[in-house]
Amino acid sequence: MSPRSSLADAARTRERIVRTAVDEASRIGLEGLTIGALADRLGMSKAGVIGPFGTRDILQGEVLERASLIFRTAVVDPLAGVPPGPDRLARLIDAWIDYLADCPFPGGCFVTSVSAELDGRPGPLRDRVRAAVIDWHTLLTAEIAAAQQDSTVSDRFAEEIATTLVGISMAVNQGIQLLDDRSAAARGRRAMRHAAGLTG
Amino acid sequence: MSPRSSLADAARTRERIVRTAVDEASRIGLEGLTIGALADRLGMSKAGVIGPFGTRDILQGEVLERASLIFRTAVVDPLAGVPPGPDRLARLIDAWIDYLADCPFPGGCFVTSVSAELDGRPGPLRDRVRAAVIDWHTLLTAEIAAAQQDSTVSDRFAEEIATTLVGISMAVNQGIQLLDDRSAAARGRRAMRHAAGLTG
Repeated sequence: MSPRSSLADAARTRERIVRTAVDEASRIGLEGLTIGALADRLGMSKAGVIGPFGTRDILQGEVLERASLIFRTAVVDPLAGVPPGPDRLARLIDAWIDYLADCPFPGGCFVTSVSAELDGRPGPLRDRVRAAVIDWHTLLTAEIAAAQQDSTVSDRFAEEIATTLVGISMAVNQGIQLLDDRSAAARGRRAMRHAAGLTG
Repeated sequence: MSPRSSLADAARTRERIVRTAVDEASRIGLEGLTIGALADRLGMSKAGVIGPFGTRDILQGEVLERASLIFRTAVVDPLAGVPPGPDRLARLIDAWIDYLADCPFPGGCFVTSVSAELDGRPGPLRDRVRAAVIDWHTLLTAEIAAAQQDSTVSDRFAEEIATTLVGISMAVNQGIQLLDDRSAAARGRRAMRHAAGLTG
């Protein structure tokens, strides 16, 4: 095997492990993630699973980073090229609800799950989840503030509206994941648009 | 020891186990609850912990029931004697935010935690969490609908407002438990009052 193809193989293996670990962690939590269960699911040895990362902590960190990337790809990337304002905020809400309704994670919104799991467990992993949530609140608040420049959007404090939208996303996620509520996404979309002061 | 005092002792022991298990589960989850860790914390044998219940499933069920009772005592009981309407809804919101800000559970809102933990784990425990959440949504929607009879309250669909309030409670819980955000409760209270169409 040439060095180049062996490097490509290593990258593919690493990718397969991270992707499987993201799926698994979205259902059973980041702390619940065991190398043994991953090895079973991947048909690999435990040493083969942990080898590319070195430690379980590093694997958990990469899983969280990947999950954040998947979220941004679904919810933020569709806004590219749309100028700040109410239309952009409406698109963000649509992409967010679509993400929850047809979720790339089998266990529903990844960060919502691991936030509830890790909030009472101090350590570097909790710190990273906290930072990811704060990043999202900051981005969302800026989008809301930009949309408020337009008079059709409510002038209530952007941070307060951000809290409401974040909350509705959690309620929709619970509606879908726990309550099997088929109207949760549509109701959440209306509730978000109303809270953001968007009409229609 | 008289039979009466031995019965009282048994009741006290059972109470101590349930209360400790509620605290433990609010931090590490209902599935994370192990008889060994409980026995260590209580200074009891494993057999002594599980004995009064028979099985871990039954103990988990009692823990969930107790947590629901603690929630209702904090949030619903203060409404006793207040007639349906906007003032009653405002009091419910105040009690709910106070519950989140000064939470009787060390890990924050119990049902929010175990909802995220168990939503992807089918079984009788998930069914019980689901039923508890649905009961709360039903009660909340009825309170909102009753408050809407008064013209000062928004006439938006009661169920949609309930989704928004449930969501804000989750965002406040995350703000307090994960983000260490000292303004989360005050912002959440304003957001809930606004969403419910209450002024002031």
